[in-house]
Amino acid sequence: MSLHHHFEVRLPAWVEPFIGHWLNGGGPPLDTLEHRMLLAIALSAENVKQSTGGPFGAIVVSQETGHLAGIGVNLVTGSGLSAAHAEVVALSLAQRSAKSWDLGSTAPMQLISSCEPCAMCLGAVPWSGVASLVCGADCIDAESAGFDEGDKPLNWTQNLAARGLDVKVHVLRQEAARVLQEYAEMAGEIYNPTRGQE
Amino acid sequence: MSLHHHFEVRLPAWVEPFIGHWLNGGGPPLDTLEHRMLLAIALSAENVKQSTGGPFGAIVVSQETGHLAGIGVNLVTGSGLSAAHAEVVALSLAQRSAKSWDLGSTAPMQLISSCEPCAMCLGAVPWSGVASLVCGADCIDAESAGFDEGDKPLNWTQNLAARGLDVKVHVLRQEAARVLQEYAEMAGEIYNPTRGQE
Repeated sequence: MSLHHHFEVRLPAWVEPFIGHWLNGGGPPLDTLEHRMLLAIALSAENVKQSTGGPFGAIVVSQETGHLAGIGVNLVTGSGLSAAHAEVVALSLAQRSAKSWDLGSTAPMQLISSCEPCAMCLGAVPWSGVASLVCGADCIDAESAGFDEGDKPLNWTQNLAARGLDVKVHVLRQEAARVLQEYAEMAGEIYNPTRGQE
Repeated sequence: MSLHHHFEVRLPAWVEPFIGHWLNGGGPPLDTLEHRMLLAIALSAENVKQSTGGPFGAIVVSQETGHLAGIGVNLVTGSGLSAAHAEVVALSLAQRSAKSWDLGSTAPMQLISSCEPCAMCLGAVPWSGVASLVCGADCIDAESAGFDEGDKPLNWTQNLAARGLDVKVHVLRQEAARVLQEYAEMAGEIYNPTRGQE
């Protein structure tokens, strides 16, 4: 096993035409929270359909204008990286576009996720500089589909609010949860690590 | 601002010769927790000296043999990615070497971090498949140097233990905390995001 000095995360090839179609009239404009969530959910569903990862999608947009700045889908199995969750991918790609680790350095930015972030992604949100977080499905939906959300502080929404981060949950929850449920029903891969104790 | 479809994280050029020297007798063998921690601390100090990021270093080793599998230093400012913390970098590079998102798929692996992980990295630990976590400096040391550790569950060590993850804290705490303290004294950059509200 040789030591590596770099790693890379790349969106699957289907994403670019999919987004192009959406922005060119194939989807509604990214004006309201519901319209933005529709795109995050569509990404989660397409990621399953294309067999490129788990049923999670996320986008980063300008809070005011809805301008799309970052796209993410779950890429754990495809990239071989356990941190390649949709939210981390979307935030990182938005930071590449912004040429800054601080997405708040220009205008207020918003992270929209098809599902409430897991413990890791929740921890990543304040570091990214986004001004607000919008979630579709919640923890219970993810866990009833077999996913582990990790150990989060019970009062996580208040904690983010105390940091000046606006949080909206349950935006199109049913539509988002349906994608998780369908993934569970088709017995999609649930990637839980083994810790060397198989 | 154009949309990006991939991002990359690369260790600074000084890391390869630095590690080569360490493994070829420049440092002690990676047999005990203290010896492993010495390398994580040395990486944290060198990262500051080389001006390539914040005062944090981490390694992933085989728990039994000490074989080095992954190296990480904080690369937030250099990479422009807020998620490029030392632990995430070390875990991701170890996963690249293992060609798997599950570091537990072969032998039990260990993450050694010069500082107790922040909320994001703590969330990343169970997803990575490592069997154990070893920390040097703690939350208080990091926060008194000006860093934000995020909102972690109060009982995080028990939570990891309940998941079958062994945790050791305060291994060479003083030596690890000294690097944080020196960074604070030289007024090193503390990268706190602005959320569009400067």
